[in-house]
Amino acid sequence: MSEIVTAGILVIGDEILSGRTKDKNIGFIAEYLTNIGIDLKEVRVVADEEADIVDALNALRNRYTYVFTTGGIGPTHDDITADSVAKAFGVGIDHHPEVVARFRERWSEQDLNEARLRMARVPDGAELIQSATILAPGFKLGNVIVMAGIPSIMQAMMDIVAPKLKSGVRMLSDSVRANAREGDIGGPLREIANAHPDTIIGSYPFQDEDKKPNTNLVVRSRDPEKLSAAMAAVKEMLANLNIAAR
Amino acid sequence: MSEIVTAGILVIGDEILSGRTKDKNIGFIAEYLTNIGIDLKEVRVVADEEADIVDALNALRNRYTYVFTTGGIGPTHDDITADSVAKAFGVGIDHHPEVVARFRERWSEQDLNEARLRMARVPDGAELIQSATILAPGFKLGNVIVMAGIPSIMQAMMDIVAPKLKSGVRMLSDSVRANAREGDIGGPLREIANAHPDTIIGSYPFQDEDKKPNTNLVVRSRDPEKLSAAMAAVKEMLANLNIAAR
Repeated sequence: MSEIVTAGILVIGDEILSGRTKDKNIGFIAEYLTNIGIDLKEVRVVADEEADIVDALNALRNRYTYVFTTGGIGPTHDDITADSVAKAFGVGIDHHPEVVARFRERWSEQDLNEARLRMARVPDGAELIQSATILAPGFKLGNVIVMAGIPSIMQAMMDIVAPKLKSGVRMLSDSVRANAREGDIGGPLREIANAHPDTIIGSYPFQDEDKKPNTNLVVRSRDPEKLSAAMAAVKEMLANLNIAAR
Repeated sequence: MSEIVTAGILVIGDEILSGRTKDKNIGFIAEYLTNIGIDLKEVRVVADEEADIVDALNALRNRYTYVFTTGGIGPTHDDITADSVAKAFGVGIDHHPEVVARFRERWSEQDLNEARLRMARVPDGAELIQSATILAPGFKLGNVIVMAGIPSIMQAMMDIVAPKLKSGVRMLSDSVRANAREGDIGGPLREIANAHPDTIIGSYPFQDEDKKPNTNLVVRSRDPEKLSAAMAAVKEMLANLNIAAR
């Protein structure tokens, strides 16, 4: 049996905490990881402060198989992710010769200023995450994957790094629309959840097209037989409920 | 001088970590807190697991003035926020008589089942966050504010609780469109940031309407004079840059 592979996300940026920028990366990475069989267990968002980044990074990288960071790898003074990662790992950091060489192809001597050269700073021992369309590379150091904050670039980096990751047994999922109020099914649903321990049963209320309270029920499991047994129990419960409601 | 008031957010829910539901609460609360002079310092997202919720809650409530939680206060077995908060504080939890009384007005004896009664469970000593339009109340215990996960209900709860919070000196903010590439201004911008220590200067690249790389610069400070001095320095830098580029 394959191991369970876990992950944390660390979003780095004052602009998310001030509310000026609305994060679009957490939801994307969460769905991406679910699809490749990696369980996202925790997300943290911290400011552009070295101590905060280092603490969160060390907490997450010791706890989960992988940590994905977004943000803070640009050319300005508030971009301190690469230095913070180096500090968390206790390794040096310098301009990466391969990145500097690519920058020289792209920019004139005058344009390749100190600010732009900052984007070539990569911790010692890190593997670059780059392609022809990505200007400033991300990198992978140990189990930490450092990516851009701009969604389109982050997404390109995920596509590059994903094939290199271990993935676990994929979490399978099935869902059913209950056509019932959450409060009417909470009792029997708890019994089903207790009777099916290797599944995770989630209940998500929503307002349906007739403005009535309704509920989506989601059953998840790594074992397809356990998943369908639990879903069958859920559907039987819902059928009995609808008969009782007539 | 007023103190600085800080906050953390704890988002509770498997559905956010699986990517099935995209969080809309972090950005809303972040912007809300900024507007009332509370500094959001950290966000965490954890699963519907008691130990994870308790650990995150204790970390955040010991570190910040306030902690805002969203999610996990519905009627089903996966709604364990109230119990986890009681555990984190080491207090008891029971059906709150005022909430039960309101539920009895709303539901018949038959409909007020054990699942719905779960929504009346409130930790000892907590203050309710409720109104005529909110069915299941949130609550405030110590410095922890427990709110619904459904955005419209969470937003109504924020409006109720906000006037009761201490707020600090509001962080002021001003921004300018640089009409320059981030890499061209990173050097002088760092010098300005160093020369204006009581301000926070952020640099946010974007693609403008002509598909050209452009940059928004944001200056923040609690002191209006320091804010305008730093912004004047930024604008002077940009003017010199544009003269040099002619």
